[in-house]
Amino acid sequence: MKLSCNQEKLNKSLNIVNKIIGVRGTLPILNNILLATDKGRLKLASTDLEIGITTWVGAKIEIEGSITLPAKVLTDFVGTNDDEKIDLELKETTLEIKSNKYNAHIKGIESSEFPLIPEIKTDKLLSLPVKLLQEAIRKILFSVATDETRPVLTGVYFVVDKNTLKLATTDSYRLAEATIKLEQSATKSASIIIPSRTMSELGRILSAVNSNVDVYLEENQILFMLGDTQIISRLIEGNFPDYTQIIPKDHSSQFEVVTNELAKVVKMASFFARESANNIKLNFTDNELLVSAVSPQLGDNVSKIPIKSEGENLDIAFNAKFVLDILGIIDEESVIVEANGKLQPTIIKPLKDKKFLYVVMPLRVDE
Amino acid sequence: MKLSCNQEKLNKSLNIVNKIIGVRGTLPILNNILLATDKGRLKLASTDLEIGITTWVGAKIEIEGSITLPAKVLTDFVGTNDDEKIDLELKETTLEIKSNKYNAHIKGIESSEFPLIPEIKTDKLLSLPVKLLQEAIRKILFSVATDETRPVLTGVYFVVDKNTLKLATTDSYRLAEATIKLEQSATKSASIIIPSRTMSELGRILSAVNSNVDVYLEENQILFMLGDTQIISRLIEGNFPDYTQIIPKDHSSQFEVVTNELAKVVKMASFFARESANNIKLNFTDNELLVSAVSPQLGDNVSKIPIKSEGENLDIAFNAKFVLDILGIIDEESVIVEANGKLQPTIIKPLKDKKFLYVVMPLRVDE
Repeated sequence: MKLSCNQEKLNKSLNIVNKIIGVRGTLPILNNILLATDKGRLKLASTDLEIGITTWVGAKIEIEGSITLPAKVLTDFVGTNDDEKIDLELKETTLEIKSNKYNAHIKGIESSEFPLIPEIKTDKLLSLPVKLLQEAIRKILFSVATDETRPVLTGVYFVVDKNTLKLATTDSYRLAEATIKLEQSATKSASIIIPSRTMSELGRILSAVNSNVDVYLEENQILFMLGDTQIISRLIEGNFPDYTQIIPKDHSSQFEVVTNELAKVVKMASFFARESANNIKLNFTDNELLVSAVSPQLGDNVSKIPIKSEGENLDIAFNAKFVLDILGIIDEESVIVEANGKLQPTIIKPLKDKKFLYVVMPLRVDE
Repeated sequence: MKLSCNQEKLNKSLNIVNKIIGVRGTLPILNNILLATDKGRLKLASTDLEIGITTWVGAKIEIEGSITLPAKVLTDFVGTNDDEKIDLELKETTLEIKSNKYNAHIKGIESSEFPLIPEIKTDKLLSLPVKLLQEAIRKILFSVATDETRPVLTGVYFVVDKNTLKLATTDSYRLAEATIKLEQSATKSASIIIPSRTMSELGRILSAVNSNVDVYLEENQILFMLGDTQIISRLIEGNFPDYTQIIPKDHSSQFEVVTNELAKVVKMASFFARESANNIKLNFTDNELLVSAVSPQLGDNVSKIPIKSEGENLDIAFNAKFVLDILGIIDEESVIVEANGKLQPTIIKPLKDKKFLYVVMPLRVDE
């Protein structure tokens, strides 16, 4: 292998593939990045056996070849390099990296030992603008389960039907749903569960791209294709709970509240609720919301803010963290709270944007 | 106690006294902030028994009194409050904090249980502009010893003689010295050791002030007075080593290097020196510096940058971290390296600014 390429582009590509490295520290080869000449370009790839990321960078290739190199030293070295052009030359399993001011020899492992990143050969499932998918990921990922007792809840439920894509997450205390209208219908229907880590990596990589993302689906794999980069991931097996049953279809109370005012008073009450599992109380009346918390040790707190009400008044208790998580990702000025009494799942959603919807379970509290 | 004050000013004052809270978690009262009316102002104080911080905020006082309150909930609550005016009213040992939208009762501990922060009654030792002291702290604190085997090295050596103030730190591998010329001579000479934590707290608080700082010294205490805030600290007992003996008076080699170029190549070599105690090699020749590192596992690296040389060429090895620490706080474009061969203490200093000086011990390496 002998080639030269641009430092800035190589650095950007290394940072794309670098992030999933070292998550599973078992196999030494998984700490390495694969470098291989590939049809006039340099291919870079990494995998943790669950996710595989591949990207390509333009290169002037003199001799074909491939090697894997330790990700950390390679990324650090190329990232600190400020020469414009970098020459790579492989001698046995050591890669010489040479530029105007800097020279390094990095010892690698043969590329034949690198785990094969599977290729997907099916037709495209759907295509959508990167920004839409990125926003949806950002707005639903927070309510994914972190505890592994029910593996299906650690993933993002990804449901495609005609020209609608829904993403949903739930940890069984709250749920988040994003609905994306596709300009072109999907080629088939699908309901799959994607590991949340894949989605967060995808969100990260998407932020560097500004095009369309194409999605390919095979039996137990999904592939996202975006410009010069692709990310492939295994799926989580099992059935996602029918979360749509939990979303209330109707409501006995509806309140409109200014998002950041609600966030402020919930946060304030949370300071007094730290010792009682973040338990705070919301008392919705005709024109006013009282938010309160009581701590046997610290004291108590009450705040009031104006609201617009429809339907019944409501006394309800929530985990402050769950409410704050939701309010933290709603960009709109106002939110709507829809409830069916103090014990039923309660909807919190942006006033105008119908794409996103959150449901949170109230806490049962003694009067 | 009954008074009202401005939220913004109270919040700023709480943040000044809040930071040293909870360092020593033993006594519950040390998690509290003292609030007391004091000659038409509200006094706020905190202590960890080593450092005491006191600040005053303007208040409209109706009833005199005092109480101590848990720092965290008080600071969080006042910091999130966005009402302009806050009313405080003490009822037994509970303080009601009331403003337009928010209300809280916070349970306190009587102020009689709060440790007395000693008062200093001597005359002023010296006075100097805040910015000078703050810069000096920032530029020497990094080389203080963190390991407690020689307690004197965990402090900042603070030496006053006529119109010169010197601050010095050393962890016995490297040393840093700042020299400040005082506009008015100090009232007496002094050589004391101030805990590094006091100096870092002081540096933090100084950044919010823009005036002069007055320094008062008593047998085992030092007081820094800055505007409405004072910080008092115990001193470290013992004798600081005579560090001036280590600073070479002469040199056989002198090199001028561009600061950020040197930092870049040292950093690059450090990637390859992680497994060998950060050991990197510098080879100074007539016009060029070669910086290199060798890792048995990873490979090796050589970089070259231009320099201006006087005197003998030099092969010398350093701990890359020590060199990077120094270069990281030199703001000037170029640095001077002065050495007496490969085994003697080596000076690194800014090209022009004579106020700061760093010495680093080379590593002994086999040829």
